[in-house]
Amino acid sequence: MSDRDVQQERQAFRDLLGSSLDDAARALASVHPADAAEWLHDVPTELRHLVFGRLAPAAQAELLQYAEDGLTSQLVLRLDASALGALLEELPSDDAADLLDEVDEVMAADALAQVNEATAHELRDLLAYEPDSAGGVMGTGFVAAEVGQRIGDVVKELRQDEEVEPELGVYVVDKNSRPVGYIPERDLLTTKIHTPVEEVMVEPFLVRVDADQEEVAQLLTKYGLESIGVVDDAGRLVGVISAENAAEIIEEEVEEDFSRLVGAGTERQQTRLPILVRVRQRMPLMALTVVAGLGSAKLLGALGAGDDAGGNGAILRYLPLIIGLAGNVGIQSSTILVRGFATGEVEREREPKVVAAEWCVGVLIGLICGVATWLVAGSLESSGLGVAVGVAVTVAVAWAALLGATIPLGCRRLGIDPAIVAGPFLIALSDLSGAAIYIVVANQVLKGGA
Amino acid sequence: MSDRDVQQERQAFRDLLGSSLDDAARALASVHPADAAEWLHDVPTELRHLVFGRLAPAAQAELLQYAEDGLTSQLVLRLDASALGALLEELPSDDAADLLDEVDEVMAADALAQVNEATAHELRDLLAYEPDSAGGVMGTGFVAAEVGQRIGDVVKELRQDEEVEPELGVYVVDKNSRPVGYIPERDLLTTKIHTPVEEVMVEPFLVRVDADQEEVAQLLTKYGLESIGVVDDAGRLVGVISAENAAEIIEEEVEEDFSRLVGAGTERQQTRLPILVRVRQRMPLMALTVVAGLGSAKLLGALGAGDDAGGNGAILRYLPLIIGLAGNVGIQSSTILVRGFATGEVEREREPKVVAAEWCVGVLIGLICGVATWLVAGSLESSGLGVAVGVAVTVAVAWAALLGATIPLGCRRLGIDPAIVAGPFLIALSDLSGAAIYIVVANQVLKGGA
Repeated sequence: MSDRDVQQERQAFRDLLGSSLDDAARALASVHPADAAEWLHDVPTELRHLVFGRLAPAAQAELLQYAEDGLTSQLVLRLDASALGALLEELPSDDAADLLDEVDEVMAADALAQVNEATAHELRDLLAYEPDSAGGVMGTGFVAAEVGQRIGDVVKELRQDEEVEPELGVYVVDKNSRPVGYIPERDLLTTKIHTPVEEVMVEPFLVRVDADQEEVAQLLTKYGLESIGVVDDAGRLVGVISAENAAEIIEEEVEEDFSRLVGAGTERQQTRLPILVRVRQRMPLMALTVVAGLGSAKLLGALGAGDDAGGNGAILRYLPLIIGLAGNVGIQSSTILVRGFATGEVEREREPKVVAAEWCVGVLIGLICGVATWLVAGSLESSGLGVAVGVAVTVAVAWAALLGATIPLGCRRLGIDPAIVAGPFLIALSDLSGAAIYIVVANQVLKGGA
Repeated sequence: MSDRDVQQERQAFRDLLGSSLDDAARALASVHPADAAEWLHDVPTELRHLVFGRLAPAAQAELLQYAEDGLTSQLVLRLDASALGALLEELPSDDAADLLDEVDEVMAADALAQVNEATAHELRDLLAYEPDSAGGVMGTGFVAAEVGQRIGDVVKELRQDEEVEPELGVYVVDKNSRPVGYIPERDLLTTKIHTPVEEVMVEPFLVRVDADQEEVAQLLTKYGLESIGVVDDAGRLVGVISAENAAEIIEEEVEEDFSRLVGAGTERQQTRLPILVRVRQRMPLMALTVVAGLGSAKLLGALGAGDDAGGNGAILRYLPLIIGLAGNVGIQSSTILVRGFATGEVEREREPKVVAAEWCVGVLIGLICGVATWLVAGSLESSGLGVAVGVAVTVAVAWAALLGATIPLGCRRLGIDPAIVAGPFLIALSDLSGAAIYIVVANQVLKGGA
């Protein structure tokens, strides 16, 4: 299916939302669950729950496996116990456990009462592990073959056992459930069916249940493994983590690192969050910058910088504050857009909306910081200087946000890698223009006030 | 094998380097190629080539599949045509083509003359595509089944044909080589051998040979595909890109984005590059910051900022320059370390060395920028001010580099996520201390000079 077809179907889905929710749900169920998850992400909250509730549990489960964590938890919180139970039956064990982590204990217990005993037991075990540990991300639907079994039997089990999650692979265990070998997926296909498992098995890679998920992901990637076995204190194989999980964990960690380094929220798909949520998430860094900037103004004053310059000297002490704030806002916006372009999160048709929203976030942050610095600088120095600093902060931050949002977009349009320009050039440009804006505004305000 | 065992073997390998290269090569061949690649990365250049040259072509090929691109190209440039030819025979088609991209045309032609005709033909075709396009990353060892063939025949081909690269999967094509279906890996295992392929095949995901590799990686990830087919202008299936490739492409792009946003080099494993290379790679951003900072000093002067303050007012005009430089250096160091910790590139035992090297890079950058600003500010303003600015730049940048290198390490030791502290707090701290350092140094120097 071509990209244009997908876009047309998406528009058709949007139109159906206004006329028939049943038809909209049917349209959602007919496309790839990855597309369905994306479409649902852009539907207003109330409508979203209504449409999702109309999907069959199997379709719900498929969609959730491709959905962002934030969307998943929103959707799941609205389900009743029986709907949640039906969903648990459809999901792979690790995803089902993640889902139960999202709801409160009463709801979790009610939902577990709805599923069959074996699954419920398994899920209760999984819930006992830390979410970020190997135990928290492993699945339990692996095949455990015993020494002496033949390849043909193993393949038969893979084929017929409904509880098996084939991507977790086949491990060979001894009588005490301790893993002694792993059978590479390829060998299952290419080995004669009468061959005993011990003839093709290789040494398994193992981690303990309490190992950190990031460490596990690094092992999977470094050694190019299909899966890694998880053992408990007694050395028994209790779960398996697949390469697919590793990719998810790494992507999650990278996005988190990125967001934390620029002081933005750690959810993925930042550009899809409501504007006020984004402002709130970024305020801590801004508050920190304002405090550091005010501190540096105080410090400069105490060290006697510009003392002999009257009002004009005092103005300059606030330069680090303005430049720091403008720089931070610009870097946040550009980093979020650069990543959004690279991951495909920002589709071409959403570009104008995303850039406008990003700018709004910057302007709001500028206003808040402007008012705060106006009040503080006004009380520390003169009321005229307070106004000068406050106005300059608002203008410089709004300007930096505009640069941070439009420069990456411009680069993308021109076919230049946005990361090159959005980082270094943006910082230089924002420093330079921040200083100029501040001095011009400060002079105007102080002149006007005098 | 436990982590400690690997460390012991690594030490044994290092000891062998001093005594017997043949034994060292044997030690290298006996461990996992991922470990071998890492060990070889830390061996001095000359010795590295000697050890690598002693490996059998199959061991060389395995090692290169886990090695960083930078290491691969270094190693390959020293091989002669027959060694390179032997390597080409052992590598999967896409990796072999990448290797040929590294050497000059004469060498490539000589090496291709050494391999069998079919492989050489295939590789020549692959070389014609842009390295960053789907054609440039695809492999050609896929299985092309025809409508009417049975699953058993396909599995047999997978099993017996040595040219087949199994991770590329099985595609069903029509008489004109146009793809009409894909057989999921799992179905090869679980379908009865007499079933015709068209009964289990699903609609294939396809891209054109000239599609951008990043776009392809996004498709593979978004839809959770095992592989994606690559078609030429006539719609014929000419290659396949596997999910494994997608992970590589994405990791590459992410690391590149990260490095570009902070103006560092785009090679992975930054912490393993020589110090002078790293200084050179980061200088463009520094030069840009110095120019912007000098521009902003000029601009502030022209706008009359601090005019009435004499020498003291002129000092303050250089604040944005100092703060900008110190901030950039600090962010570069901390970003490189945060990523290095997260990807496992910086092992515990290398921590002191890596932090020290990172600080050296910062100090050298500080010295270079200090001399440059001393000369320029000295000629623009007074010689005293030039010295003040130059000394302050050097001190502030060296200090920021120390913060940028030690804060992430401290966080890691304390079990705090370095990304949270290394970003926002570092910027605030470096802004504040940069301003203080500047004023103290400037006052001292100007007093001393007066």
